Amino acid sequence: MTDRRSILGSLGLGLAGAMATGTLKAASPRRPFGYAVVGLGSYATRQIMPNFKGCDHARLVALVSGTPEKLERYGAEYGIPPTHRYSYATFDTIRDNPDVDAVYVILPNAMHAEYTIRAAQADKHVMCEKPMAVSVAEGEAMIAACRRAGKRLMIGYRCRFEPHNQLAIELARGGHVGPTRLITAEHGFNARTNQWRLDRALSGGGSLMDIGIYSLNAARYLTGEEPVEVSAIEATDRNDPRFRTVEDRINFLLRFPSGIEAVCVSSYSSNHNAYRVTGTDGWIDMEPATPYEGHAMRIRRDGSTAPRTVPPARRNQFAAQLDHLAECVAAGTAPIVPGEEGLADLKVMAAIYRSAAERRHVAL
Amino acid sequence: MTDRRSILGSLGLGLAGAMATGTLKAASPRRPFGYAVVGLGSYATRQIMPNFKGCDHARLVALVSGTPEKLERYGAEYGIPPTHRYSYATFDTIRDNPDVDAVYVILPNAMHAEYTIRAAQADKHVMCEKPMAVSVAEGEAMIAACRRAGKRLMIGYRCRFEPHNQLAIELARGGHVGPTRLITAEHGFNARTNQWRLDRALSGGGSLMDIGIYSLNAARYLTGEEPVEVSAIEATDRNDPRFRTVEDRINFLLRFPSGIEAVCVSSYSSNHNAYRVTGTDGWIDMEPATPYEGHAMRIRRDGSTAPRTVPPARRNQFAAQLDHLAECVAAGTAPIVPGEEGLADLKVMAAIYRSAAERRHVAL
Repeated sequence: MTDRRSILGSLGLGLAGAMATGTLKAASPRRPFGYAVVGLGSYATRQIMPNFKGCDHARLVALVSGTPEKLERYGAEYGIPPTHRYSYATFDTIRDNPDVDAVYVILPNAMHAEYTIRAAQADKHVMCEKPMAVSVAEGEAMIAACRRAGKRLMIGYRCRFEPHNQLAIELARGGHVGPTRLITAEHGFNARTNQWRLDRALSGGGSLMDIGIYSLNAARYLTGEEPVEVSAIEATDRNDPRFRTVEDRINFLLRFPSGIEAVCVSSYSSNHNAYRVTGTDGWIDMEPATPYEGHAMRIRRDGSTAPRTVPPARRNQFAAQLDHLAECVAAGTAPIVPGEEGLADLKVMAAIYRSAAERRHVAL
Repeated sequence: MTDRRSILGSLGLGLAGAMATGTLKAASPRRPFGYAVVGLGSYATRQIMPNFKGCDHARLVALVSGTPEKLERYGAEYGIPPTHRYSYATFDTIRDNPDVDAVYVILPNAMHAEYTIRAAQADKHVMCEKPMAVSVAEGEAMIAACRRAGKRLMIGYRCRFEPHNQLAIELARGGHVGPTRLITAEHGFNARTNQWRLDRALSGGGSLMDIGIYSLNAARYLTGEEPVEVSAIEATDRNDPRFRTVEDRINFLLRFPSGIEAVCVSSYSSNHNAYRVTGTDGWIDMEPATPYEGHAMRIRRDGSTAPRTVPPARRNQFAAQLDHLAECVAAGTAPIVPGEEGLADLKVMAAIYRSAAERRHVAL
């Protein structure tokens, strides 16, 4: 039960610093940090799994899926031997696989809590996709389970590992365009039919849980504050076959303690991917703001507007995110996006839904 | 009491068509339509008065001010003889001036109702700046007074006479980017201290009455619908000397009957001038959207974004607006932005204030 990180930490090896300079392998003879990916859907197979190749510390060592053909196909593609392929039924035996340090949960939202808790009980660290769960109670149970097991829980907020977003945070919080007054954030896409995301039993909600969470999370990370009041209005055409059980658009206003306000869009019937931080002296605009690639930033200051080029990072956002958990475990530090970060979004999202349903402002 | 327009109308002269082709003078020997400008502040002297020179039908024939030096200065500059210069005390004698067809009220908001009603009682048509008044009751009284006098009442919504905005309306309502799903509209500026607009007794409110009304009016004209539900959150630092009696930021959400939602910003502590109509297939973006000049439009469709150039109009928005009332009076038609248009904004603004104050959604 004693973590390597606690041993290393007690030895005062300063591993965090060593890892920041990319010298982990020199500092430690240990093999790379092994991930089991749970759920072989589109995001896992197209975005996460291909990006292990760009990692400094993380590698893909196991796969979990309910579909034998997927295990066969991706097992072969990524060189994962049959001993490291699991079904949901055999998932708990992952405890006995010493190559697996962490489980990355990329399942439909309603399954996040169960598999996070089972992973912690199998003595593994956990990376869980956002939204971390479909309710505040689930989120709290996940945090408690990981704490009880002495394991790290990190939520897959990839934007925090992307250089344009990192720069936007630095500029916004640093007052580059004056103190922030307003944040506008828009996220949405035209949902296709026949997806788990349109089935409330699996998704826990509609556009807000899936894509509007980017608007919310951006408003929180660009301010570094927690909202104290929320108001939301929903607009869903229940005759649209896509929206029988989940919401289409749910837009919301947030008020932060310092007086910053945020105005946020969440849509399942139109394309949006942008945010803007407006300060007293100008603005920082990102469009697209949170894509997989192709971010664009413009800054307005002193009455003129100019694009801001950001040098590409050595590791992309996916690889940097995967490495971050490995780095935290090795260094004995908490992830910058721990379970508590996911829980904060869940609490605000619950308030957004309540505001829309009860047609009133909700205090947080 | 019988208007020239009603005589011309009864003769079936088709003057509207004649005027549209700029042949008013050929169709009628009548002198141009004469305006008295009431209130010689910045907007009147810098934007409105200089633009009479671009009008086809309207001319400046009288001035009303409480400041004798202004009457002297602008009277000389615009060739307005002392007989056509009025103080607020002598204003009602404008009834006896046959050169004055209409009064253009450009006073602080709280004086709009009084001078509109006095102008109607002096048997003059009225152009009144927006917001038309500081309360719904005042707006209704103004409409009633003009109707009783048989006079036209038009509100100074200049954007409706500006080609980019006209094109945006046409494209949005015509489904150029698919059916509209969302409108975002942002208007604001850094208010300077010591202005009548920061004194609630004169302004009737803060950023919403002054600049947020552009976000609201745009949401209404881009959809052609009236909102049925509103929610708003205010953020005002009462320690800021500018905001002792009026609000700083008040952002609001609108829901329209067709299901369109609007997300609107109103600010007195940051600069904003933009709107975007997002449809299922793309968006129409304007930034700046409602300036005096320098509008810029971009359209995203079929996955690519391109600027859209709009040819300059022969008459700018100010001249076209001034002419419109003259054209309506001559043709016996209602202005496209009558008193009822101003009243519609007042009703929604009252609901926005109520929502922010009572922390609940307000149905309309």
